[in-house]
Amino acid sequence: MTPTPQLLAVLGRGVVPVEFPLLSADDLGVTRGDGCFDAARVTSGPDGPRVHYLAEHLARLQRSADALGIDGPDTGEWEALVGEALQAWTGSAEAVCKFVLTRGLESRPSSPVAYLTITTTPDAARVRRGVSAVSLDRGYRSDAFTDAPWLLGGVKTLAYAVNVAARREASARGVDEAIFRSSDGYLLEGPTAGVLFACDDQLWTIPFGPTGVLPSVTIAALFTAAGSNGVGSGQRMLHGDEVGDCDGLWLVSAIRGVLPVVSLDGQRLRHDPEVTSVLANAVGFPSIT
Amino acid sequence: MTPTPQLLAVLGRGVVPVEFPLLSADDLGVTRGDGCFDAARVTSGPDGPRVHYLAEHLARLQRSADALGIDGPDTGEWEALVGEALQAWTGSAEAVCKFVLTRGLESRPSSPVAYLTITTTPDAARVRRGVSAVSLDRGYRSDAFTDAPWLLGGVKTLAYAVNVAARREASARGVDEAIFRSSDGYLLEGPTAGVLFACDDQLWTIPFGPTGVLPSVTIAALFTAAGSNGVGSGQRMLHGDEVGDCDGLWLVSAIRGVLPVVSLDGQRLRHDPEVTSVLANAVGFPSIT
Repeated sequence: MTPTPQLLAVLGRGVVPVEFPLLSADDLGVTRGDGCFDAARVTSGPDGPRVHYLAEHLARLQRSADALGIDGPDTGEWEALVGEALQAWTGSAEAVCKFVLTRGLESRPSSPVAYLTITTTPDAARVRRGVSAVSLDRGYRSDAFTDAPWLLGGVKTLAYAVNVAARREASARGVDEAIFRSSDGYLLEGPTAGVLFACDDQLWTIPFGPTGVLPSVTIAALFTAAGSNGVGSGQRMLHGDEVGDCDGLWLVSAIRGVLPVVSLDGQRLRHDPEVTSVLANAVGFPSIT
Repeated sequence: MTPTPQLLAVLGRGVVPVEFPLLSADDLGVTRGDGCFDAARVTSGPDGPRVHYLAEHLARLQRSADALGIDGPDTGEWEALVGEALQAWTGSAEAVCKFVLTRGLESRPSSPVAYLTITTTPDAARVRRGVSAVSLDRGYRSDAFTDAPWLLGGVKTLAYAVNVAARREASARGVDEAIFRSSDGYLLEGPTAGVLFACDDQLWTIPFGPTGVLPSVTIAALFTAAGSNGVGSGQRMLHGDEVGDCDGLWLVSAIRGVLPVVSLDGQRLRHDPEVTSVLANAVGFPSIT
């Protein structure tokens, strides 16, 4: 049997052929990027496929929907759809489950559209050994999102064109990844990953709220695991000039795991593969080989 | 015969039923807002419907596509599709033709998706008499887009969630419109309109480039008409504190025309309805009644 490379499940309809056109030309999700999404890791083992940190990803999706004022499905409806999709999923060992919610049609009365896809992910073993990165100015000051909810800071909207453009820019500069920095010089996040760093024998990530940074589900899980092992963690700002003083810098993604940044803007960074392996294992990813 | 409220025409397929689902769940236009659009006015008269400033809107769409590196249809293909659509359009006197171009599928090889919709527009007579507005911080400094092409300044991408959120914020504050201002206090543009102002017996709009402002097709046409009548025009920055000194401030949209801003952040602004009528007439809109 040929493995399924991608599966589509639509709320109210269940699993449908992936080739099936789903969205109206007038859907606000496409005409305005007016909707939200979330993405979680799917792995398949002897007991079948499962979604990692499902509750946490659905909670974040709900927060995104609330910030946009979209009255989408509740958690139970999403969970039921995930159950149907996993039963039908016969794809590869590593995949991504992407949840998408749009506001619905622009020109006619309609309901929000909710669906999920499960898609085989490319092997991330190489990037888990280390990535080169460039920092790109995001144009916002590090406190730009204070009292400005219309800027949708921390909301995982469908309006990701700048994130995609930043990845193209990184690629054009011959490096693996982009890391956004604020106009006042602080590291913020990757286009599809959170920033984690080690300093003063603790783990840190970038504060949410004023920075507009998306809270990372995987970093939160990592901090919980670290706490259980007596390692402290917290949020603090990291200026670009301070990166060289860190004991490690990682981009953390639900899908690809804990990627050590081995160079940033041409500067080599400290990196201990054993630490990366411990961090990766703590959130279910394999050790570096 | 019932007027058609909306029409859909797809490149390579022609006019199709508007209810027809068109886009894959995996289309980058919806999953990332990774694509661009443009919107032009359609009016229907005794000689049938026509698109206003079609060449200018298609040229701007092409610049957006180029900035995103999407190899979409050429101008001739768009023009042919517009021709087919106008032949089929039996809708109301005032409508909007929206051109949409997405990069195509995220997970499988594909081509860009290109289509247009023509949709009846609500009567804009009220807003043409005057709108109240609130200025909302866009979070960017007025020079944030200098040397930062990944921020997609001046590109009309599908990633408009912040623009939509700003309109919701204006509505929640009980005013008609939002006008973005830079973090250093300069007016930029509306979520779907350019800023025009009168000062020192000239017409002005906000400079493009470093500000990230989208060049307005309608303001450019207005400046050409003004020049023919001996009225000078140009680009200059306008700080929020200077708005009260202007002889007039307008939001200019291809679809709704020349909307006088009669109050901004609660401050009443100067407004001469006769000047607005002259400006509106110059780009094909009716006088204020």
